[in-house]
Amino acid sequence: MSATAPAGSSQRRPAYRRLSVEQRRAQLLDAAVVLFAHHSPEQVSLDGVAAAAGVSRPLVYRYFPGGKQQVYEAVLRTAADNLVARFAEPAEGSPLRRLASGLRRYLAFVDEYASGYAALMRGGCVAATSRTTATVDEVRQAAVEEILRHLEVDEAPPPRLQLAVRSWIACVEVAALTWLADERQPPAEELSTYLVDQFFGTLAVSAAGDEECADVARRMLEKESADGPLPDVLRRMLPLIEEAAPLLG
Amino acid sequence: MSATAPAGSSQRRPAYRRLSVEQRRAQLLDAAVVLFAHHSPEQVSLDGVAAAAGVSRPLVYRYFPGGKQQVYEAVLRTAADNLVARFAEPAEGSPLRRLASGLRRYLAFVDEYASGYAALMRGGCVAATSRTTATVDEVRQAAVEEILRHLEVDEAPPPRLQLAVRSWIACVEVAALTWLADERQPPAEELSTYLVDQFFGTLAVSAAGDEECADVARRMLEKESADGPLPDVLRRMLPLIEEAAPLLG
Repeated sequence: MSATAPAGSSQRRPAYRRLSVEQRRAQLLDAAVVLFAHHSPEQVSLDGVAAAAGVSRPLVYRYFPGGKQQVYEAVLRTAADNLVARFAEPAEGSPLRRLASGLRRYLAFVDEYASGYAALMRGGCVAATSRTTATVDEVRQAAVEEILRHLEVDEAPPPRLQLAVRSWIACVEVAALTWLADERQPPAEELSTYLVDQFFGTLAVSAAGDEECADVARRMLEKESADGPLPDVLRRMLPLIEEAAPLLG
Repeated sequence: MSATAPAGSSQRRPAYRRLSVEQRRAQLLDAAVVLFAHHSPEQVSLDGVAAAAGVSRPLVYRYFPGGKQQVYEAVLRTAADNLVARFAEPAEGSPLRRLASGLRRYLAFVDEYASGYAALMRGGCVAATSRTTATVDEVRQAAVEEILRHLEVDEAPPPRLQLAVRSWIACVEVAALTWLADERQPPAEELSTYLVDQFFGTLAVSAAGDEECADVARRMLEKESADGPLPDVLRRMLPLIEEAAPLLG
């Protein structure tokens, strides 16, 4: 089978460039990633994948005997790995600024994989299975762990803190879907500021009701700086809080 | 067909109670609602529905020719209507207390429909289609509208406020799923307090970045009272905010 011949063996037949199994699989996957990024799974066909990769439909089947669903799941795996790789952020400087930086990369991913992201995250996607849900959950879990790492909660995170971080991630997903539906308005930078503010709000509210969350929030505050995002959101929140102060009697 | 005979016509044959089409359909649906509430769609069979309703499998097919998927969608419709009906709350007193009261009814629903709710909302449910997703979105939209009604934003809600309310609903869903997974801990009352606090936090953060949200938040504050939920969460949040104050320079 030509598809299994090592790349080097094709040197005498340059017109039919032979790829190794791995190279061919990567080529098919690259083409499929682009298709699934720009279309919902319903709109993608195996013929489309074959055409985009410049190969025959049977060749696609040889690599993905499970057909479109198998291609989709491999694409999702690739996209998930790509997204998780973007979470990595050095543990330096203001934690909220680090979060903003990760968020910008998340929104760049959402921008790039727009249709695929929307189809998958909106739910009811025909290609969704317990396996695709598990992949999405794995990405969320990676985000939770990266955030907890920056909050210096490496083991046994308080349940209320986990809930707060997970809720905030759900909030990011809702915001990302709304952003795509609203033709990427407001600008990514503004949306990311809003979401960082929301993170602080969620953490502050969790700290109000849970001593362990309060410890984590205080540790985070110690690492915030006057030129980080926190003073700005605090300044903007204070008028409302002052307005509520009379209720405290 | 016996199933179409009016209920009254069976008076001389008490052993075979004849139900009208509507009554029979309601009876099948009642049995199916209970099954789908306590099991994931994968675990429910048409035979199970027939057995629970005390009828034959062909009779279930006569009412639901689309089989299990059609039964599931009818059950989801019934459950969605049931949930939406629970959102209705008189527009009186502290808005946050009204929210707490709606949340308690939401969590009672989640408690009652636990397995079905978890299977559907976790995603990757085999019975999920664009129709079931549309039903879930319809329920979310009803929740958004009820909340906006209490915030006295009846028309043209500011986009940032809509985003805040939608994000908060996502946060409620994450919390409800976590609550089910954690064997209903913390108690519903405590979780509902936490979520009301989060609502205030989300609104306050949105108000910090958006003048229209600030107007809505101020209007809400005017309706809050010293014995409502707000003073308590404010009191608990203040220490952290005071700790952050030095950053303001």
